[in-house]
Amino acid sequence: MEKVIFDTDPGIDDAMAILFAEACSDIDLIGITTVFGNATLNTATRNALYLKGRFNLAADVAKGAEKPLVIPVDEPADFVHGVNGLGNIHIDESNLPSPVSLTAHDYIIEKVKAHPNAITLVAVGRMTNLALALRKCPEITHLVKQVVIMGGAFGYQGKTGNMTPFAEANIIGDPHAADEVLSADWPVTVVGLDVTMKTIMSNAYLSSLINASPKYGQFIYDITRFYADFHQQTDKVDGIYVHDSSAIMYVIAPHLFETVAGPIRVVTEGPAIGLTLQKTANKRFPIDDWADFPAQKVCCNVDEEAYLQLYREQLSNGR
Amino acid sequence: MEKVIFDTDPGIDDAMAILFAEACSDIDLIGITTVFGNATLNTATRNALYLKGRFNLAADVAKGAEKPLVIPVDEPADFVHGVNGLGNIHIDESNLPSPVSLTAHDYIIEKVKAHPNAITLVAVGRMTNLALALRKCPEITHLVKQVVIMGGAFGYQGKTGNMTPFAEANIIGDPHAADEVLSADWPVTVVGLDVTMKTIMSNAYLSSLINASPKYGQFIYDITRFYADFHQQTDKVDGIYVHDSSAIMYVIAPHLFETVAGPIRVVTEGPAIGLTLQKTANKRFPIDDWADFPAQKVCCNVDEEAYLQLYREQLSNGR
Repeated sequence: MEKVIFDTDPGIDDAMAILFAEACSDIDLIGITTVFGNATLNTATRNALYLKGRFNLAADVAKGAEKPLVIPVDEPADFVHGVNGLGNIHIDESNLPSPVSLTAHDYIIEKVKAHPNAITLVAVGRMTNLALALRKCPEITHLVKQVVIMGGAFGYQGKTGNMTPFAEANIIGDPHAADEVLSADWPVTVVGLDVTMKTIMSNAYLSSLINASPKYGQFIYDITRFYADFHQQTDKVDGIYVHDSSAIMYVIAPHLFETVAGPIRVVTEGPAIGLTLQKTANKRFPIDDWADFPAQKVCCNVDEEAYLQLYREQLSNGR
Repeated sequence: MEKVIFDTDPGIDDAMAILFAEACSDIDLIGITTVFGNATLNTATRNALYLKGRFNLAADVAKGAEKPLVIPVDEPADFVHGVNGLGNIHIDESNLPSPVSLTAHDYIIEKVKAHPNAITLVAVGRMTNLALALRKCPEITHLVKQVVIMGGAFGYQGKTGNMTPFAEANIIGDPHAADEVLSADWPVTVVGLDVTMKTIMSNAYLSSLINASPKYGQFIYDITRFYADFHQQTDKVDGIYVHDSSAIMYVIAPHLFETVAGPIRVVTEGPAIGLTLQKTANKRFPIDDWADFPAQKVCCNVDEEAYLQLYREQLSNGR
């Protein structure tokens, strides 16, 4: 069982990924840490607690950062995730469970220290909580098992950005945090738009989850109606990209992904703010500020058919 | 005949390009404007004047900028071009002709105004002179015929940089000037590393120029010995990349190049300083600071065999 702390801003595909992680037979979802992004911090935290209550999750919920490290906070993407962050379904706020008293980055530090080299950090929102944890306790870099990030776009499969022509939303939402997390000396794998936009759940597929997973299927179908409308309008896609669940999928089935190794940096200002770059050239340059950074892995391709099959299988575990 | 002003920092491949332009039957090389870069401004200007005297060029020589717009000037690349900028051949400094009294950017403005829509600006060094001309006289954007730039790398043919992993030398040498020139509302074509590193003149080819072009061949062979050593040591290349001549080749034979259209910006700070980016995605983004910039052309491929044949043919014109 992989012990996972899931850092997230639910968010429709975040909620899908939380339920997917809970359903995976190989994952022990011990904590959910929240961050601003797809919704405000308060809304994202409320949504995490709602999922914990509704689906009886054992995972702790720890509330995290409400704004980026340096740049101003941007407006929540309510045109993608709905005003309530969950596609505007009805949310019963009575009897919500409570978050733990620790703030997200302190929760991460405590758990990583308590379970040395056993915890996988999966972060699918702005990386602010992870950056704050790194700043407060740099030694966690040598105590986590691995870090899996949903974010960025590296030009593979022709993908370069979704918020701007060159920036993915999680990166441009806090580029300084992303640069600190992706360039830190811990083992990072990035699951970016290169693969998440290649994996599409059609509306027919989403509908099939209703029977396949009596526990989660109807809820996932319901929250994805708003999200699917957004995809139809912007990219003429029948269905949805499977961004955040792809990070969970990498944890349980890394063999479905091809990766490329090299140091990663993030552009933090100017016209390309939020651009993620990986140095893969294996040669010497007169000036190379990248040479001292650790090689991280970026997913450049995915077997999306096997992915969709395994997702449905795992989701049906929880019936 | 294409009236060409050639902005340059000779530089070995710059010198080759000047002689190639002079030899081309379709080019009227009216002026050479100099800039710091491969050598200091004084050395680059001395070399342009030496070429004018030695090869009896009709072109004016105008001395230009000695440093970038914003960042500090970097050291000349004497490990590429030799301490004297021409591969350390003997340079006879007696009887050098004189430059014109106008500074480079004023020369460009005067000539462009004097020949509306007839002048092609070819710039193969830092774009400082062109940026200064744009700042002083913005209306020249509508008075030049076209602008052809050697610089940058856009990831085509796997090419991303030569000075750093993501920056080409002419761009990182003055990134602010490059951003102003490449994003200005005039018709720009960029001939970057994507194509210039695909075109290689082997030492055997360079040797063949001695007979093919009695006027220029021996000189080109002599100055490229130092340059070829650099290529052998750094990239294990037998011969040389043909950077600057490629911009002249585009002027006379654009059909040898494939191009892609879209706005171009330059990263001017941070770990990716000097990176050139072209937006080619034909979709709408929530935030798009690129949408208001003009589409420019970037060369993404070249027919290098036809190129090498035409270069030798044209060079032999001047015999």
